Amino acid sequence: MSPMAGTPKKNLMLFSGRAHPDLAEEVAKYLNVGITAQSAYEFANGELFVRFEESVRGCDAFVLQSHCAPINTWLMEQLIMVDALKRASAKRITVIMPFYPYARQDKKHRGREPISARLVADMFKTAGADRIMSVDLHTAQVQGFFDGPVDHLLAQTLLAGHVAKTYQNREITVVSPDSGRVRLAEKWADTLGQRPLAFIHKTRDPFKPNEAMVNRVVGDVRDRVCVLIDDIIDTGGTIVKAAEALKEAGAAEVVIAATHGVLSDPATERLANCGASEVIFTNTLPIPEEKHFPGLTVLSIAPLLARAIQQVFEDGSVTSLFDGDA
Amino acid sequence: MSPMAGTPKKNLMLFSGRAHPDLAEEVAKYLNVGITAQSAYEFANGELFVRFEESVRGCDAFVLQSHCAPINTWLMEQLIMVDALKRASAKRITVIMPFYPYARQDKKHRGREPISARLVADMFKTAGADRIMSVDLHTAQVQGFFDGPVDHLLAQTLLAGHVAKTYQNREITVVSPDSGRVRLAEKWADTLGQRPLAFIHKTRDPFKPNEAMVNRVVGDVRDRVCVLIDDIIDTGGTIVKAAEALKEAGAAEVVIAATHGVLSDPATERLANCGASEVIFTNTLPIPEEKHFPGLTVLSIAPLLARAIQQVFEDGSVTSLFDGDA
Amino acid sequence: MSPMAGTPKKNLMLFSGRAHPDLAEEVAKYLNVGITAQSAYEFANGELFVRFEESVRGCDAFVLQSHCAPINTWLMEQLIMVDALKRASAKRITVIMPFYPYARQDKKHRGREPISARLVADMFKTAGADRIMSVDLHTAQVQGFFDGPVDHLLAQTLLAGHVAKTYQNREITVVSPDSGRVRLAEKWADTLGQRPLAFIHKTRDPFKPNEAMVNRVVGDVRDRVCVLIDDIIDTGGTIVKAAEALKEAGAAEVVIAATHGVLSDPATERLANCGASEVIFTNTLPIPEEKHFPGLTVLSIAPLLARAIQQVFEDGSVTSLFDGDA
Amino acid sequence: MSPMAGTPKKNLMLFSGRAHPDLAEEVAKYLNVGITAQSAYEFANGELFVRFEESVRGCDAFVLQSHCAPINTWLMEQLIMVDALKRASAKRITVIMPFYPYARQDKKHRGREPISARLVADMFKTAGADRIMSVDLHTAQVQGFFDGPVDHLLAQTLLAGHVAKTYQNREITVVSPDSGRVRLAEKWADTLGQRPLAFIHKTRDPFKPNEAMVNRVVGDVRDRVCVLIDDIIDTGGTIVKAAEALKEAGAAEVVIAATHGVLSDPATERLANCGASEVIFTNTLPIPEEKHFPGLTVLSIAPLLARAIQQVFEDGSVTSLFDGDA
Amino acid sequence: MSPMAGTPKKNLMLFSGRAHPDLAEEVAKYLNVGITAQSAYEFANGELFVRFEESVRGCDAFVLQSHCAPINTWLMEQLIMVDALKRASAKRITVIMPFYPYARQDKKHRGREPISARLVADMFKTAGADRIMSVDLHTAQVQGFFDGPVDHLLAQTLLAGHVAKTYQNREITVVSPDSGRVRLAEKWADTLGQRPLAFIHKTRDPFKPNEAMVNRVVGDVRDRVCVLIDDIIDTGGTIVKAAEALKEAGAAEVVIAATHGVLSDPATERLANCGASEVIFTNTLPIPEEKHFPGLTVLSIAPLLARAIQQVFEDGSVTSLFDGDA
Amino acid sequence: MSPMAGTPKKNLMLFSGRAHPDLAEEVAKYLNVGITAQSAYEFANGELFVRFEESVRGCDAFVLQSHCAPINTWLMEQLIMVDALKRASAKRITVIMPFYPYARQDKKHRGREPISARLVADMFKTAGADRIMSVDLHTAQVQGFFDGPVDHLLAQTLLAGHVAKTYQNREITVVSPDSGRVRLAEKWADTLGQRPLAFIHKTRDPFKPNEAMVNRVVGDVRDRVCVLIDDIIDTGGTIVKAAEALKEAGAAEVVIAATHGVLSDPATERLANCGASEVIFTNTLPIPEEKHFPGLTVLSIAPLLARAIQQVFEDGSVTSLFDGDA
Repeated sequence: MSPMAGTPKKNLMLFSGRAHPDLAEEVAKYLNVGITAQSAYEFANGELFVRFEESVRGCDAFVLQSHCAPINTWLMEQLIMVDALKRASAKRITVIMPFYPYARQDKKHRGREPISARLVADMFKTAGADRIMSVDLHTAQVQGFFDGPVDHLLAQTLLAGHVAKTYQNREITVVSPDSGRVRLAEKWADTLGQRPLAFIHKTRDPFKPNEAMVNRVVGDVRDRVCVLIDDIIDTGGTIVKAAEALKEAGAAEVVIAATHGVLSDPATERLANCGASEVIFTNTLPIPEEKHFPGLTVLSIAPLLARAIQQVFEDGSVTSLFDGDA
Repeated sequence: MSPMAGTPKKNLMLFSGRAHPDLAEEVAKYLNVGITAQSAYEFANGELFVRFEESVRGCDAFVLQSHCAPINTWLMEQLIMVDALKRASAKRITVIMPFYPYARQDKKHRGREPISARLVADMFKTAGADRIMSVDLHTAQVQGFFDGPVDHLLAQTLLAGHVAKTYQNREITVVSPDSGRVRLAEKWADTLGQRPLAFIHKTRDPFKPNEAMVNRVVGDVRDRVCVLIDDIIDTGGTIVKAAEALKEAGAAEVVIAATHGVLSDPATERLANCGASEVIFTNTLPIPEEKHFPGLTVLSIAPLLARAIQQVFEDGSVTSLFDGDA
Repeated sequence: MSPMAGTPKKNLMLFSGRAHPDLAEEVAKYLNVGITAQSAYEFANGELFVRFEESVRGCDAFVLQSHCAPINTWLMEQLIMVDALKRASAKRITVIMPFYPYARQDKKHRGREPISARLVADMFKTAGADRIMSVDLHTAQVQGFFDGPVDHLLAQTLLAGHVAKTYQNREITVVSPDSGRVRLAEKWADTLGQRPLAFIHKTRDPFKPNEAMVNRVVGDVRDRVCVLIDDIIDTGGTIVKAAEALKEAGAAEVVIAATHGVLSDPATERLANCGASEVIFTNTLPIPEEKHFPGLTVLSIAPLLARAIQQVFEDGSVTSLFDGDA
Repeated sequence: MSPMAGTPKKNLMLFSGRAHPDLAEEVAKYLNVGITAQSAYEFANGELFVRFEESVRGCDAFVLQSHCAPINTWLMEQLIMVDALKRASAKRITVIMPFYPYARQDKKHRGREPISARLVADMFKTAGADRIMSVDLHTAQVQGFFDGPVDHLLAQTLLAGHVAKTYQNREITVVSPDSGRVRLAEKWADTLGQRPLAFIHKTRDPFKPNEAMVNRVVGDVRDRVCVLIDDIIDTGGTIVKAAEALKEAGAAEVVIAATHGVLSDPATERLANCGASEVIFTNTLPIPEEKHFPGLTVLSIAPLLARAIQQVFEDGSVTSLFDGDA
Repeated sequence: MSPMAGTPKKNLMLFSGRAHPDLAEEVAKYLNVGITAQSAYEFANGELFVRFEESVRGCDAFVLQSHCAPINTWLMEQLIMVDALKRASAKRITVIMPFYPYARQDKKHRGREPISARLVADMFKTAGADRIMSVDLHTAQVQGFFDGPVDHLLAQTLLAGHVAKTYQNREITVVSPDSGRVRLAEKWADTLGQRPLAFIHKTRDPFKPNEAMVNRVVGDVRDRVCVLIDDIIDTGGTIVKAAEALKEAGAAEVVIAATHGVLSDPATERLANCGASEVIFTNTLPIPEEKHFPGLTVLSIAPLLARAIQQVFEDGSVTSLFDGDA
Repeated sequence: MSPMAGTPKKNLMLFSGRAHPDLAEEVAKYLNVGITAQSAYEFANGELFVRFEESVRGCDAFVLQSHCAPINTWLMEQLIMVDALKRASAKRITVIMPFYPYARQDKKHRGREPISARLVADMFKTAGADRIMSVDLHTAQVQGFFDGPVDHLLAQTLLAGHVAKTYQNREITVVSPDSGRVRLAEKWADTLGQRPLAFIHKTRDPFKPNEAMVNRVVGDVRDRVCVLIDDIIDTGGTIVKAAEALKEAGAAEVVIAATHGVLSDPATERLANCGASEVIFTNTLPIPEEKHFPGLTVLSIAPLLARAIQQVFEDGSVTSLFDGDA
């Protein structure tokens, strides 16, 4: 008698938290796979429960969750899903967080603060995650918070492609809404063809979060189409004041583009009334109908996620999706 | 020149999450310390933030949170507090969870489920917790989920002391509401002086959580005061059906006693109308005014927590608080 | 020149400690594989040594040991086997402990005790185990002690199937020998077709292990076939006193069924003389000839282990072996 | 007989690698302690050796190393010192890296790169470090790479204080040498009293490290004193081209200020000849005599390090040294 | 209200496994402390149990066990004691193993073997040990198996002191019983005053443990007192054949000295009859009355252990006990 | 829609640090694979950078580096390569260190020293290494420093085969240059056919590294061919004094054989002039042209490395390459 032998198989299984089912459905469609059936609900006191309806033993699991409000619930749901997959013998677990939760708390801004973005990475490691996939991290250093591979997808190509096509013959200045995003603006300026740069020099009161005091425009914006870029727009305070400052400084038109539309109140109202001619987001976070307004453009991130998942599953190259930049 | 030398000092600092400030205040009063001032709030998208207002370097930190709804928010807040304390050089961090969240998901009831209670323990370890203190764990095995000391406090003395005093000359039978709490009922029976035992033999449909089908009373309850005990009362379905079964079986009076009053809807209404003459809880979870009803007794767990904290701080014995049983 | 490429192979290799070779042989036969040849012996001072006689590089290793006396020797032997497999590049290591050693020390019963069942899980993790397989854990929470997948097999179907067949037309009451196993009895009662329940209310002196003081029967047993169930029978003190109490309470017949027959002295003698008409075990632990007695039935666990190993190897579903309950 | 008891003592011991003995001596002088005697040398093949000449058992160890060239040697020396301290029973080990090595490799700039700054943090954790102290991290997110407390000291106060005093009545513009340091420039502008901002918009060829192509000045610099700031100056290419661009754009005077003077060749020559009237560094890295040139100012970081060490030792507040900002 | 403050105390508590109570008593006497009372016993199936009778919270715990047969039992007992101490909040746990179990399995002698000495170190780390103290490790590299401080005590001074005093005016040659202990013999030769060296060149059959084939004496031994040294004497085969070879080669007298007297059968008989005039051991392992024979000298290791424990407790220097050599 | 499925592929990729490109090329040739293209350089301040030019996702990575001077640079380069591979999703990472750096610091020779060889193992584990392959470790116990598989290749067969062929009819004595290598000499003596043994009894001053005081020859060497063996020859002080002592003692001829030719100055000069007729090394470390001298023989280790890599990749047996001894 000899040992029992065989050839291992691998199979991709896609799992979805309950935060943004449309995105998961769209990714599944591009991958041509089904979303694994599960039983997921909240107990009366808010404790969450997940159980998978079919065997996941040996699978290559991709667990997609979108981290909109209530963000701690969706974070915990994804952690619990990972724990269940680990204990049910999934072979490899990739956590997909299109919007990385708590990414903005990536350092101690002042003493005695948490570094919650590191905590999130460690919690997923502890739960059993082997890898993380995310889109446009608030700072790229967050990759280094996870002890393992991080596939960092860039939505800039998607957004900038749309801008390039729509405003191709216009005099564009790329504008950073504050001093911390000038590097990002520079990348946009390169992508759009060596465009000039500007930024808003403002002072922010550290004791009043989500409020900003816009100062003055640094750079040349008069009579130009100002493409005001950011990674995240939450309540919209900063970006809207930047748009107003640009208008005051003589900008011909203001176009806003950002990857993650958190859109906490009163962002929608602010954006609709700030004078911007177009506001562009991806759907890394759900943007429900009631938050739509004229001038809003939502580009789907699903094709990019699907291609990246397929590359990971087939041991292809994710970097090649971005010309070596990711 | 010689090395710089000195005698180390130790100082106890008490920290409180925002879930149940009354309990923290009460514990602080018993300990005669202040609660450390902190800045804690929720960003617009639900992300939490905590910053301590004074230096915590070298302190012996006790971090109290009560895990009521929204439970994932309060869990995450406590994790973030622990992370901030670790990074701010607290010497030792004790996490106090009077009600251990997700304690009921302490095993895989069926395949492909998470063991969320272990996940919670691991997340606190990862965040930086050195020790855990909790009251009446759903199963004592949860102690073994944490890789470090767990001070497991017992509220039974408090509850049983109240019952003993109130019903001291009555014919008591201690009743477990289902087959899984008979051991606990036996402990009560011992504490109350070798009282007889009974339990409710029911069948529970595993696919419909929070619902129960009461069957029949096993044991002698006719014309007796039935002390119906449990550790947690959530929606109250099980306990209320047990109370009704006892009434039907001829019980003279039904008294309900449980440590943790989760009291998710419609627990309050059910308990108020189930025919029990008294319903006793501790305040490990907040029981707000609007959930009060006639017959409700709430005993404070604060003195026990305060004594345990002091023993831990002074390297005394927590076990001695329970005659060696904890 | 391009990289060297190929298709990975996987092969199952079965390893056996020296505690219970018959069980390993039986499992091997069901799997139709050989047990990997090894050199294993004890040095003069009791230190153990193991060396595998053939290459184990890249194999899917299943390491079976039975934890009978001398239990610490067999535990250490299995740990050493895992260490040797890890260092010899086995691809995956599954530890099979049909009887989980120290499972009864799964919590601190009183202060300043170890939680040895957690220690066992951690030691196997440290040695290099990827997964654990066990049968009828003393408490299911022990699954949560291991940081990885645990395949928890249930022997109840095997035992209850035998009882159902043998006593199918009799009036059965399922009896728990103490207050802590009533939940288990309830599961039996369901499996045997909604049978009535009873339990023994006893007091145990915590300072005298292995002794018990039987009190009285709670539930209806008169003139019925009492199926007295437990997971482990060690010295048999508790179960035998329960059997006697049932007889005194008018039971028509007593049948004892338990998964793990530890059978430390004087269990065999006690069981043979307690008046039970049948005593049923599985062979998770060896029951040597000299411990046999009239009325003893030993059912083999080997087919169940073999099927579970095959499912694990082939990435099938272990849960499906138990209708979703494991 | 009772247990042996006592009061613990704590003593600070200062250890120094061999890279920058002057800085260590200066810190020791401010602390009024001696540097612990050690035997440290390089074997013929470059392997390093360290042995402490006196007992370090139970001490609060502060291990200072400066990470100049040969940087991997000094990094390894510090790691070995930490290992030796751990094994010799030091109570707590704080690694002091005034210039954090590999801080610039804090993310994957493109695919398939290391994140060496995280690797450095993990290696110190592995060797036995409990805490890290550093000055002006290249990005503050590096704090989150270490699993434990990081005391992040800011030299900006020191540098900006010197600039404020020297140029107090002048028309200052704060200038960032590229798009990635505008946030830092903004902090300087605040500190110097709400000064205007500018930055250099350049394109860098990612395939040719240490070279830069300066483009044009964004912001108002004509006839003003331009304070050109950075955290690190290595070969000086970027900063010198920025200085030249400012001169061309009509700046009245250029002052360069940076925390870490790496000064790899040909930085000294470039800086001496770039037209800047003053170039200011701290001594986090040694700046030997042969690299001095007219206009160079070196401010000592030793008083700040000494105060921070003392705060850490005495469980005081490091944050308070920076008005809450660290 | 301010935080509660105080001065920490430290207290030494000594714990003893059940393997060698005389040694523990002797150490306790030298330290002038009591051995902490505990309840320790074996369940019927061999599972071990330990519970401490008094609070150990915050203590500096020293856990002494001697690893004689049944060695796996005593190893497990010590592991369980460490687990219980960790969970009961001991502040620091030092594991004292005068004879390090499995020290001889410190490498893979051939492929597919375990490295059990590393496994032992890792298991203690996992259980909660902070430090290890041991005497005359089989190879000093075993220190590196533990991730933390190891106090490696040397019994050579004790043994060599006895030899020096007893044979001070004799012509001594120090002899290694095989090729692997020549370095150790050289150290003895130095200690005894630059004495000549010899060793036995033998061939050992790797497939027959505990057997040896003595070849010939290399070095000058004729008419000299041969001090035959080793660290461990187990069954005595090697050492006795070496003694015989020395006699045949004309040795005037043979004296045997070793630290650890494992003395598995038939060591005692062999040693008594091998022609050695004196056989010297320490009591790191118990040498019961029935193993005594004429010419046996047993030196107590207790004073050395007690001094080392005191140095560790008081943060003194253990190295100084050995002139810097440990 | 069903999950996406497939058959996993595996591919071997060989990576080489920059220390010894000839060896890597030779190994690649034997394996018939290419070395993966990478961009590797040193920044101006000595910080290293590595980036792979093609996708490594899912590969079985073998990372070869030779640890010659500057040894800390090459060590750090290999660590960074491992980090980059981990983050780029290599499936398995095998670190190949033909000469294990810091292997000689494998224990604390005296108190308060590091155990740098363990530190090296831990750093590779931290960086992401799954396995280590090395040749002729200074002590075999170093295998136990790594928490995972170590393939320990033996060059003795290669070296001894050359000696056996060249000196087959001569009267050989195998000589250890000091007391610590006698065991190794014994293995050589066996391999060469039960040859006699000798060693040099010397005293080494621990405060002066790399210097040795030769004493006298123990064993019979007159008129014989003395094969003087060692694992490492660094500055050559010890071995050359041994050679001289052998000549003085009447040796007919001295042949020196060692695995690792570190050859720090003035080793080459010493060896060329010590009177040895032949000096044999492998090329685990580069021996550049300028270090060649008459009588030098360099045997290539590449075939052995290539065969071992292939066995590891194909899950074959490395042990079988050495007749079971590795």
